[in-house]
Amino acid sequence: MTDVVVAIGGNAILRPGEEATAENQLNNLRQSCIPLARMVKKGWGLMMVHGNGPQVGNILLQNELARGEVPAMPLDVCGAQSQGQIGLMLQQAMGEALRREGLDRKVTCLLTRVTVDLDDPEFVSPSKPIGPYYSHQEAKRQMAHGWRMREDVARGGWRRLVPSPRPLSVLEKDAVRALMAAGDQIVIAAGGGGVPVVERDGRLLGVEAVVDKDRAASVLARDLCSLFIILTDVDAAYLDFGGPQQKALGEVTVEELKNYYAEGNFHSGSMGPKVEAAIAFVDSPGKTAIITSPELLDKALESKAGTRVVLE
Amino acid sequence: MTDVVVAIGGNAILRPGEEATAENQLNNLRQSCIPLARMVKKGWGLMMVHGNGPQVGNILLQNELARGEVPAMPLDVCGAQSQGQIGLMLQQAMGEALRREGLDRKVTCLLTRVTVDLDDPEFVSPSKPIGPYYSHQEAKRQMAHGWRMREDVARGGWRRLVPSPRPLSVLEKDAVRALMAAGDQIVIAAGGGGVPVVERDGRLLGVEAVVDKDRAASVLARDLCSLFIILTDVDAAYLDFGGPQQKALGEVTVEELKNYYAEGNFHSGSMGPKVEAAIAFVDSPGKTAIITSPELLDKALESKAGTRVVLE
Repeated sequence: MTDVVVAIGGNAILRPGEEATAENQLNNLRQSCIPLARMVKKGWGLMMVHGNGPQVGNILLQNELARGEVPAMPLDVCGAQSQGQIGLMLQQAMGEALRREGLDRKVTCLLTRVTVDLDDPEFVSPSKPIGPYYSHQEAKRQMAHGWRMREDVARGGWRRLVPSPRPLSVLEKDAVRALMAAGDQIVIAAGGGGVPVVERDGRLLGVEAVVDKDRAASVLARDLCSLFIILTDVDAAYLDFGGPQQKALGEVTVEELKNYYAEGNFHSGSMGPKVEAAIAFVDSPGKTAIITSPELLDKALESKAGTRVVLE
Repeated sequence: MTDVVVAIGGNAILRPGEEATAENQLNNLRQSCIPLARMVKKGWGLMMVHGNGPQVGNILLQNELARGEVPAMPLDVCGAQSQGQIGLMLQQAMGEALRREGLDRKVTCLLTRVTVDLDDPEFVSPSKPIGPYYSHQEAKRQMAHGWRMREDVARGGWRRLVPSPRPLSVLEKDAVRALMAAGDQIVIAAGGGGVPVVERDGRLLGVEAVVDKDRAASVLARDLCSLFIILTDVDAAYLDFGGPQQKALGEVTVEELKNYYAEGNFHSGSMGPKVEAAIAFVDSPGKTAIITSPELLDKALESKAGTRVVLE
């Protein structure tokens, strides 16, 4: 059995404009798990990493609105809660998809932490907007308490900015490895990019930051397997996406992709981190990263679709 | 290495009257983990089960207060969130305690589900009050939507009653076993008693119920080890607790304990479920259940304190 880490895009859980009910999310996940269960049937050993943007945003908003009656939890704890929330729904949905394929497998979700470096420049200049929109007055109050915030003119509100540092390692990677070695486990790990922790005075402390889930998945895959798949809502990475010279990338070497990246082909808020995660993963011969859509997963595994990143 | 399941009492996380901040809970857990880390140092293979009553209550309250802006999650999903919330804090606290003992171990938290039976009488007559207190008017509205509720005259409000069915099995037990087999893992599982699920039409569905954490821990221990420890805020199980004939139980056989239980010695809201969980666990020779306080854990392991339940 060949193990693979698959990073699942946000749309696999919640589609744009949809209400974030448990029912909608579970139904979307049921659909999203169909091609993943087929992969398992073909013999792949599957590790899944999911995002948590809208979900942790909603948990933060609940914390904010209930602040008068319930002490608000810090961001690391909210992230852990979102791992439980999404993990359960993904576990249930994947279990159903596997049964429908006639497979008797266990789906296990591990609460996951990732180490980050306090010297990461993101801790000086945080870039990631999260959670609810605040009025200017509320924003001033929050900023007086130390929050970094940015006005989103289009949405007419202020939003908290948190650091999105690079993940260094997945603390639970040995646990993931032990579960995969059992042979009948599908593992959900590094949900939402994992809870970021730093080492200080011999302690691991949670920090008020978030980790990009594709980057965290790349780090998890680096230590555990030679194939890394990023599922998103487009069929491949594109040069000049949406422009006159738009061109889907098929097989591409890391060097070529680095050049395309440097030329500014990939949007920093969407394809950029995915391309970066793919580049970081393919650091030795025999390692392959694939960027494609869930619909094309089968074809991409046969090198007939998607962007396929190889060393040379 | 001999494996043991330890169920940790609610006071290990949050003491009565304390504000439920992350800081308070983390500090309490740091204290609570000291004797547990000593156990690991002595060579025990540790699996930990924690409660989640106040925490899931607060998550439900947050859901209720934010309902106008964020879709409320069902109880099973809230339970999973509480596993993430408490699991992270316990993982961090236990990691620190292990380091202080000079131990290089991993602490891993598994999102855990338990199967329950829809024919359990609790689904007809739910007994467990959870979540916020409602006014009579709000309660009427909720009851019209199908909630069962009960007035708590002392607290001046109405509270939701949910089923607390008996757990049949822990779905993630194989995953726990695989992690324990790795030899360097401390496992957190069945947090809050686990998320209750039922099998219906070939699907596992979350249900609006809660599972007693001591019962869930007993079921987990049944499949994985021969020692089961329940930590609580008293040093042992007592006959006639608080009465004139009060007497701590030392070593006791399952049959004796069953008789004491039938005589009504144990309060249904506190020691009752613990005694029940201990009785259920000790179903064959060589199995031992211990009920004691964290302070007496060391002594209890040497049969010098606590209530020790054996087959005969």
